[in-house]
Amino acid sequence: MAQPHEPAAPEAATATPTSAAGTRPTALGTAPAGPPLRIGMVGYAFMGAAHSQGWRTVGHVFDLPRTPHLTAICGRDATAVRAAAERHGWAHAETDWRALIARDDIDLVDICTPGDSHAEIAVAALDAGKHVLCEKPLANSVAEAEAMTRAAERARAHDRIAMVGFNYRRVPATALAHRMIAEGRLGTLRHVRVTYLQDWLTDPDFPLTWRLRREHAGSGSLGDLGAHIVDLAQYLAGEPLAGVSALTETFVRHRPLPGTPTTGLNASRTLHTVDRGQVTVDDAALFTGRFTSGALASFEATRYATGRKNALRIELNGEHGSLAFDLERLNELWFHDGTEPADRAGFRRILVTEPDHPYLDAWWPPGHALGYEHTFVHQARDLVLAVAEGRTPEPSFADGLQVQRVLAAVEESAAKNSVYTPIAV
Amino acid sequence: MAQPHEPAAPEAATATPTSAAGTRPTALGTAPAGPPLRIGMVGYAFMGAAHSQGWRTVGHVFDLPRTPHLTAICGRDATAVRAAAERHGWAHAETDWRALIARDDIDLVDICTPGDSHAEIAVAALDAGKHVLCEKPLANSVAEAEAMTRAAERARAHDRIAMVGFNYRRVPATALAHRMIAEGRLGTLRHVRVTYLQDWLTDPDFPLTWRLRREHAGSGSLGDLGAHIVDLAQYLAGEPLAGVSALTETFVRHRPLPGTPTTGLNASRTLHTVDRGQVTVDDAALFTGRFTSGALASFEATRYATGRKNALRIELNGEHGSLAFDLERLNELWFHDGTEPADRAGFRRILVTEPDHPYLDAWWPPGHALGYEHTFVHQARDLVLAVAEGRTPEPSFADGLQVQRVLAAVEESAAKNSVYTPIAV
Amino acid sequence: MAQPHEPAAPEAATATPTSAAGTRPTALGTAPAGPPLRIGMVGYAFMGAAHSQGWRTVGHVFDLPRTPHLTAICGRDATAVRAAAERHGWAHAETDWRALIARDDIDLVDICTPGDSHAEIAVAALDAGKHVLCEKPLANSVAEAEAMTRAAERARAHDRIAMVGFNYRRVPATALAHRMIAEGRLGTLRHVRVTYLQDWLTDPDFPLTWRLRREHAGSGSLGDLGAHIVDLAQYLAGEPLAGVSALTETFVRHRPLPGTPTTGLNASRTLHTVDRGQVTVDDAALFTGRFTSGALASFEATRYATGRKNALRIELNGEHGSLAFDLERLNELWFHDGTEPADRAGFRRILVTEPDHPYLDAWWPPGHALGYEHTFVHQARDLVLAVAEGRTPEPSFADGLQVQRVLAAVEESAAKNSVYTPIAV
Amino acid sequence: MAQPHEPAAPEAATATPTSAAGTRPTALGTAPAGPPLRIGMVGYAFMGAAHSQGWRTVGHVFDLPRTPHLTAICGRDATAVRAAAERHGWAHAETDWRALIARDDIDLVDICTPGDSHAEIAVAALDAGKHVLCEKPLANSVAEAEAMTRAAERARAHDRIAMVGFNYRRVPATALAHRMIAEGRLGTLRHVRVTYLQDWLTDPDFPLTWRLRREHAGSGSLGDLGAHIVDLAQYLAGEPLAGVSALTETFVRHRPLPGTPTTGLNASRTLHTVDRGQVTVDDAALFTGRFTSGALASFEATRYATGRKNALRIELNGEHGSLAFDLERLNELWFHDGTEPADRAGFRRILVTEPDHPYLDAWWPPGHALGYEHTFVHQARDLVLAVAEGRTPEPSFADGLQVQRVLAAVEESAAKNSVYTPIAV
Repeated sequence: MAQPHEPAAPEAATATPTSAAGTRPTALGTAPAGPPLRIGMVGYAFMGAAHSQGWRTVGHVFDLPRTPHLTAICGRDATAVRAAAERHGWAHAETDWRALIARDDIDLVDICTPGDSHAEIAVAALDAGKHVLCEKPLANSVAEAEAMTRAAERARAHDRIAMVGFNYRRVPATALAHRMIAEGRLGTLRHVRVTYLQDWLTDPDFPLTWRLRREHAGSGSLGDLGAHIVDLAQYLAGEPLAGVSALTETFVRHRPLPGTPTTGLNASRTLHTVDRGQVTVDDAALFTGRFTSGALASFEATRYATGRKNALRIELNGEHGSLAFDLERLNELWFHDGTEPADRAGFRRILVTEPDHPYLDAWWPPGHALGYEHTFVHQARDLVLAVAEGRTPEPSFADGLQVQRVLAAVEESAAKNSVYTPIAV
Repeated sequence: MAQPHEPAAPEAATATPTSAAGTRPTALGTAPAGPPLRIGMVGYAFMGAAHSQGWRTVGHVFDLPRTPHLTAICGRDATAVRAAAERHGWAHAETDWRALIARDDIDLVDICTPGDSHAEIAVAALDAGKHVLCEKPLANSVAEAEAMTRAAERARAHDRIAMVGFNYRRVPATALAHRMIAEGRLGTLRHVRVTYLQDWLTDPDFPLTWRLRREHAGSGSLGDLGAHIVDLAQYLAGEPLAGVSALTETFVRHRPLPGTPTTGLNASRTLHTVDRGQVTVDDAALFTGRFTSGALASFEATRYATGRKNALRIELNGEHGSLAFDLERLNELWFHDGTEPADRAGFRRILVTEPDHPYLDAWWPPGHALGYEHTFVHQARDLVLAVAEGRTPEPSFADGLQVQRVLAAVEESAAKNSVYTPIAV
Repeated sequence: MAQPHEPAAPEAATATPTSAAGTRPTALGTAPAGPPLRIGMVGYAFMGAAHSQGWRTVGHVFDLPRTPHLTAICGRDATAVRAAAERHGWAHAETDWRALIARDDIDLVDICTPGDSHAEIAVAALDAGKHVLCEKPLANSVAEAEAMTRAAERARAHDRIAMVGFNYRRVPATALAHRMIAEGRLGTLRHVRVTYLQDWLTDPDFPLTWRLRREHAGSGSLGDLGAHIVDLAQYLAGEPLAGVSALTETFVRHRPLPGTPTTGLNASRTLHTVDRGQVTVDDAALFTGRFTSGALASFEATRYATGRKNALRIELNGEHGSLAFDLERLNELWFHDGTEPADRAGFRRILVTEPDHPYLDAWWPPGHALGYEHTFVHQARDLVLAVAEGRTPEPSFADGLQVQRVLAAVEESAAKNSVYTPIAV
Repeated sequence: MAQPHEPAAPEAATATPTSAAGTRPTALGTAPAGPPLRIGMVGYAFMGAAHSQGWRTVGHVFDLPRTPHLTAICGRDATAVRAAAERHGWAHAETDWRALIARDDIDLVDICTPGDSHAEIAVAALDAGKHVLCEKPLANSVAEAEAMTRAAERARAHDRIAMVGFNYRRVPATALAHRMIAEGRLGTLRHVRVTYLQDWLTDPDFPLTWRLRREHAGSGSLGDLGAHIVDLAQYLAGEPLAGVSALTETFVRHRPLPGTPTTGLNASRTLHTVDRGQVTVDDAALFTGRFTSGALASFEATRYATGRKNALRIELNGEHGSLAFDLERLNELWFHDGTEPADRAGFRRILVTEPDHPYLDAWWPPGHALGYEHTFVHQARDLVLAVAEGRTPEPSFADGLQVQRVLAAVEESAAKNSVYTPIAV
């Protein structure tokens, strides 16, 4: 215990005694508690775990008009999905996403599967009258993303909303950057430079997982990492990209098939005989571009930056100031105020843990860091509020489609000798 | 979604369907799930919220032999405690801690109140056959801490365990530091320097809260911040302090009473007439000391370090290497390997997010940051394991007593013109 | 005084008493001192001052086989060049570079003029039997650079050498990076990312200096900053770029003519009537590329990165490790050793001030920082050694020509819609 | 070449042609050049080299009313001092400091010897009518320092001045800190924390040099490193320390005598038989203290901080702001403006390379780093100006005496069980 800013006790509830039957609250925050928002989630791997943590936690931290219920989780392997339900706190398990959508005790479908199934599930869920949260990238192709966006528009007419899970908009530091830019603190924007650097493919014997196959992942680092940084750059710049020029590369073209032993007593010989399959996605994507205002942008997404584990870094330079962020130090935002006298100016480290910072009034005292998973709590909060208020949340499916068009232009440019390729509108 | 290291699905549970009646799992991890561990918590302010988050989350992340249940929360204000129960997910609310202890559906009492009530509650709970987790500092005096330690020893004979909540041992980076030091990577220890810097008292009109009154808080920055850094320093050094020389200071001796208006139309005049009360604790404490091995230590705890929000910083220098940590960047540990050739040596930033790092196998892929509250999840995990395994967890009440003796020696030295004061054994 | 590593006294000279007539040594280091190396410098602005500091200092720090003499400095304005001679310590002043070259007491011509005069002076000096040091960029066009390279080859036959002043190869940290890469510490190279960010054009009323006119500067940030980072990237990678794809931009197309008042009582009106001229060079250049080995590269050079003063940053990622450098912290090199166990690996800050580091045995004890101007001392040292040893120094004019070809390809790509443009061989 | 801010050409000299006889200017800066300031330096090891570089360079960079001449250098070993004269650019060599002082072509004596000879030389030089610059610490005892201060007062009556060489006041970043504090930007001072960490004694077989013998060095890390940080802390705080409480320690009490072989074919046996001598100074000194205003201070000086090469770090916290500096990154000053709104406040990195920063108008464009040795150039500049203007420069011998009194109080406190010991006035 090391701080004085103790959160005030919540306002008195109407004091229905908490039920002895369960440890979860029956009502939260200001009374009377709103109706539940019943979630059905498809997928239970990394993203499923992260979304579960978000849904479980959000009602204990934020005052919400509706209370998320972790109603059902869905996956193809009956045993595994049941274990995931146990682990992550879901009341029911399903093995067919169509059955999940058909349940009438589900209000919102949260899609955490690989990209090749996003379109089919999202369109079906929206057409079935569910709200939808879909992980990024929105889809594996522009055509799919367009179909999804049309479905979101149809659903909008029936008060159903759709959001795409670009969670890095929900880091308090990036949300603060967005606010500062919207306030005009950078002035006319000149440069945006963004990298998303990881290193888990450095080892040439890392196996050929689904993420390295085009039929499942759509693309490689481009769709996985590049989608994040394109969205974040456009979100912070407050404007879309107009065109790009791109290079992509696959450094290691054949990798061991999963399950193939690559070490052992005869490892050195094995290396020549091991079954390897073809990597059909990019390992790295570099592109430059122009925003519609004329600002210049550079992007790099790679899984080969040895020692960089999760280095999503973005810097924006405007006529009056600059901002910089690094996901590996996600509680910090660096700001240079170019309007200060030169002898006192400098990039300052804003520790984004003050009550006035985005999302922070609900958390801990100043200086007490948040982590990666909090982006999912914030995403859940924003989505619950949007549902309750009946408005389209950001990033919308249209925003996800715009990102998809940028990724398509990147691939087109890379295929056409890097020629500058406008983004389709 | 930006990583390949998806947590493997948990092993198949024995597949009792998750109950539709509640969203919490009835069993977790490997089957069959162990019996519940029923928690009763006293206090619901900052620490209450943090502990609740730990208890709620731990079973969804770690494989545990017993499942924590948030059974009852206790506070004096009936309305407020009921609201806290709702907010934080506790099944029942109590207004008298004696009633809480008397409940036979409570296995463990978690004490999150100010220090002046720790001893009475903890001794009663232990004597009533409960396990106890007590927030730091263990007590407001050595005598209280001694009584608590005796109670813990009595309870130990009946297989009840007691732990004190020095949560900063559970930052993965500090736990890694402990492991590396225990492996001998620093060699003979020469220096330990520690600061815990905050700035919330910089404003002389910050009100006179309970933390600034000796009768409640015991001491000021010394007991609040100093207790943390003394424990962490001894934990990492692997040995106790032998003696200290200290200075303490109260910079602002009178502060507005809580509720007293200090601003407004006539603020400048009001400042002369506002009701102020006396600050009866230290604002800052500086002390130097010697470890039993002869290593030197320096400590500084203050609430007046403008711009430092939560700067618990520790550096240890040994004959063969050094380690450094800063709580404001809690996912990082800096290591200098002094055995490397001088032309390639340097402090390296270990991003403590690898699966081989303490606690990390249960969380996210490399590079995905944890936050402050995870220390409470880890604390809950370690305590549940200790209960299940029937062993005294660390830090024990004896460890908390040792810290209390250091704090007492600091106060004694400060009162005696800084003379070097041995730590009582 | 704060260090034990006192440089050993130089070996005993043969003890000719130092002349009372002058404060400069008549002999340096090991006896007998070699003959003088008589320098004639053309230009006396920023680079002239920096080179002068290098020539003045080098003999007092390094053991050299020949002693540099600051014999003559040349500039068109007789009064100004005489003042520069006084200030910077040159024995004679000339107003015509042809006269300088004609002097028979000059061994080496050091060219510090703007790029448009490099070719004419360098070719004439080489053909006149002088050694030449030419500031970067080597020339304003590939044709000029080719002519210069041919002249250097002709001169080589007569034991005259030519070097181009890419001084950032002589930062101890970059030289150490070069050594570590040559030793194989990075393994197969995957990525090189480089930026050179400055901000002195952020203000749209900064005047139209010669650097913003194509006829003098050749190009803008591309030739000024881009030349540095292209050379450094190729030097560290150990291989040339094979092709590039580029965007360039001029954000502010008209600027006040030098001497035009832009502020004053009627500043707001003045802004509409002030005499402005056209900026005819790029403000910023972004390009991606491929090295011949297949490694990918990204480059950004700009004068609009608000708050970045001299941010030449380079990072190289290889299969086994990574290196990173930032000119704003030029005493540091960051190294990630990817062959270490993951739980102990991290980017380490090597403070490049150890005696085993390049150039450092002649300077101060560990931890005592060097600065920007030391690169010119080191450049002078390396050039004197090359002259004495009769070998072509690096970077040679051929290296400078290669950089020029990259810059030309960048401009060609930018003019052709960013299409990937091979580097001419 | 990478910047537009080219230093303006110096004003036209009166155009006496530079002499062909020597490479040094006969006149500098504004005409007519002032008379020479003829330097005689005693000592030629580390500090001798650094001071020489300062004297050689200052006139080529700053406009000075008098021109430093490196007239004579003095050391006991005739061969070595002659070599040093050659190397460092001194016109004459002497082997007896009394002979040096007796020369009538010397205006200023620069004392770079170990501390045990400071008093004798300085007093003699002042009494002989020379100006004096004396390296720190001023002396090895308070009595010596008092005698020196009295000599400085006597000399003052004859327009001779004396300065002590606390060169770390002349880092542009610390000078800027001084200016900002003097402007009131920190408000009431609360905390000053300072460390000076080095690591060259970590190896227990490092030999017993003169710095480890009390008869030569006076004290160990205390006088060497501690003197620097005490002076810097008092300089920045703008007030003296009132008292201290201290611990000192000698970790390794016996070390190999210089020249004793400690490695080789029989190294392991040699280790038992090597001749070792006693270390008679402190290895480390820790002390806390109070400034006269009531602000608290902590100090740590050590040569055992593995991996810290030259970590002189100081942080000052005031009611309205904070400043932080680290000598290992000497071009940076960190400033927290506590009067800014909390959501935008943070420690900012001021890159102290702007023309408006102290000393910087004479150097390179923004972002071009200075190094350690520049402190000696700045020290020379300030001293030349003081001589020309006939005023006592800072730090005066009285300032050096005050530091000596603090060091004496530290030793007294350490000897008296750390009891708080007032600083004598």
